This record gives sequence, structure tokens and C-alpha cells, in this order.
Amino acid sequence: MKELSLSKVYQLLEPGPVVLLTTAHKGRANVMTMSWHTMIEFEPPQVACVVSSANHSFAALHATGECVIAIPARKLASKVVKVGNASGRDLDKLAAFQLTTAPAARVSPPLLVDCFANLECKVTDTRLVNKYNLFILEVLKAWIDPAQKNPKTIHHQGYGKFVVGGKTIKFKSRMR
Amino acid sequence: MKELSLSKVYQLLEPGPVVLLTTAHKGRANVMTMSWHTMIEFEPPQVACVVSSANHSFAALHATGECVIAIPARKLASKVVKVGNASGRDLDKLAAFQLTTAPAARVSPPLLVDCFANLECKVTDTRLVNKYNLFILEVLKAWIDPAQKNPKTIHHQGYGKFVVGGKTIKFKSRMR
Repeated sequence: MKELSLSKVYQLLEPGPVVLLTTAHKGRANVMTMSWHTMIEFEPPQVACVVSSANHSFAALHATGECVIAIPARKLASKVVKVGNASGRDLDKLAAFQLTTAPAARVSPPLLVDCFANLECKVTDTRLVNKYNLFILEVLKAWIDPAQKNPKTIHHQGYGKFVVGGKTIKFKSRMR
Repeated sequence: MKELSLSKVYQLLEPGPVVLLTTAHKGRANVMTMSWHTMIEFEPPQVACVVSSANHSFAALHATGECVIAIPARKLASKVVKVGNASGRDLDKLAAFQLTTAPAARVSPPLLVDCFANLECKVTDTRLVNKYNLFILEVLKAWIDPAQKNPKTIHHQGYGKFVVGGKTIKFKSRMR
């Protein structure tokens, strides 16, 4: 994987793909599927995301303040669903679903090397955690896999139905 | 337009489409393009979104606590970009870009009838507005246009480049 400029991170999350979120707590790594996230700042890149207190990952994220957001392409869709349907309470999901990991540079949770992008994050604001399970994250370091060209992201419409990113269109724009 | 059950609203926003946001303030309606939003609760549906204080819409949203989130399909993409490139400070964007409006039921900002979905919203939490321009909204009423079948949403990758929703794939899933 190759380092990506932090100024480009928003371009990966702004389209709204389903992502995988890894955590590590008490010597054990875990992974969950997450769709409720948004950019909130360009640089340093900041993200707001919901990790439900019903998710096993919640305690790890809350206690350690660290996670990795990994972005899967279409080919990983069936594993993404398996991750979403299982709980780290009962299962070592990384092993069970054969998700290959690599150490991150700045945080303890692992990178997922089959994903085309990995974002190392720390929690920076927990004011809305109690009421909404909403965490504010800062992206500390970003990686992309140059071998995955034009990866097709997947976008959850509910109940295991996903729309796959199709063709791209380009307009003259002053929008960043 | 036909009323949509509030329990289904998350299925429209969770995939991360670009949306239009209307506001109304001092007798004048305005519209902006928005990509930074996420669901934070299923029902009643709640949304977190960033409306920058650099946007003309910020003052209207902050003062009135009301907006409509309208979701455009592919065919509106060029208008979405025009809206994003102009400011309500200088221009009546709804008129200039020929966006047809209709009155909303619960809020003052207008619905956009060319969009395939419209969500009437009120601001419910402003704790993160000062630091991040992040508003928490509750969706009060939702509408869809039954004439637009399988609308293709657009997802911004930065600088006027969009990925268009492609085919859908379905997996057995326990995820809502």
C-alpha cells in the first residue's frame, strides 16, 4: 500500500461507500461493517460516524479512541455482509472471514490489505456519543492500494441490498 | 408526490447520494448542494449534516431550524453542479436554474418536485455547529415521486466528478 495525501481523503468517503471499521482492545482485533459516516472537514480530514452501542466494536472504540476505516471494493461485498451479520462477541471475524491484516503506522487496530484504501483514525470528540453513538474522528494517515484501479464501491440501501458504483461523469465545477 | 413511511427514510440517505438542501428565510427560499451528511438514527429518522458557515444557507438554517433535503437523480446532475457553483447571496438559484418547487407540509422551505425524494426536516441539536458546522436534523415527513422508477443517484468524488449508481446486488443479510 502507498501513502495517500490527507488532502485527498475526503474524495474516498464523500461518495458514501460502505466501509469496514477495525478496532483493537485487550489484545484482540475486531471488524464491523459501517454505513453511517460523513466527512466533516477537509484537512486535517475529520469524519463523523455512528458506532452503535449495540455493536461489540463500541466498547473498543470508546476505550481506546482508535480505529481504521477500510474501504472495500465490489469484490469484497460478500465478506462485508458476513462481517455485518456476525458479532465480535462470538467470533474472531478477521480470521473467520479470512481478512488479511497488516500493522498500521499510527494506531493499534490493523489495516485490511484487501481493501483499496485504509484510513488510520483517532477519536477527537465524544460529545455526541451518549445521545447518538456519534464519534468524531481525525484521520492521521491514509493508504491506498495502487494495484486496485478504479475500484467500484458499494453503497447500502438496507437489508443486504447494495448499489454498486457505476460510470463516472464530470462537470466543470468550482466545488472542491 | 407520495408520502413515504419514515421507517424507510434511511434507505434513501444511507447510500450517500449528493442532495439539495432548501431553506427559507426572510421571505426568500434558497438551495445548496450538499454531500456531507449521514443517517444517525432509523426512527424517527435523524441525520447529521455539515452546512458550512461559508454557505449562504447557513444563516437561514441556523435562524429558522428548518430545511428540506431533496434527492436528485442523474438527470439533474448538471443543475446540481450549477447550484453548487453559485451562491444565494448573489442569485435566486431556484429561479435561475428552473427548479420547480412545491409547498412542504410541516416546514417553510420548499420541496423540489424534480427530485425523486424530499425530506422535510427540523434542526434538533446544535451542539456541534460552532466547532464543525454540524447540524442534527430530524425528518418530520418524507415524500417520493412514484413516477421515477429506480432513480440513479450521484455521488461526489470531488471537483465536479461524480460516480453514478450502477447495478444493484443483493445478499442474505440480517443488517437492517
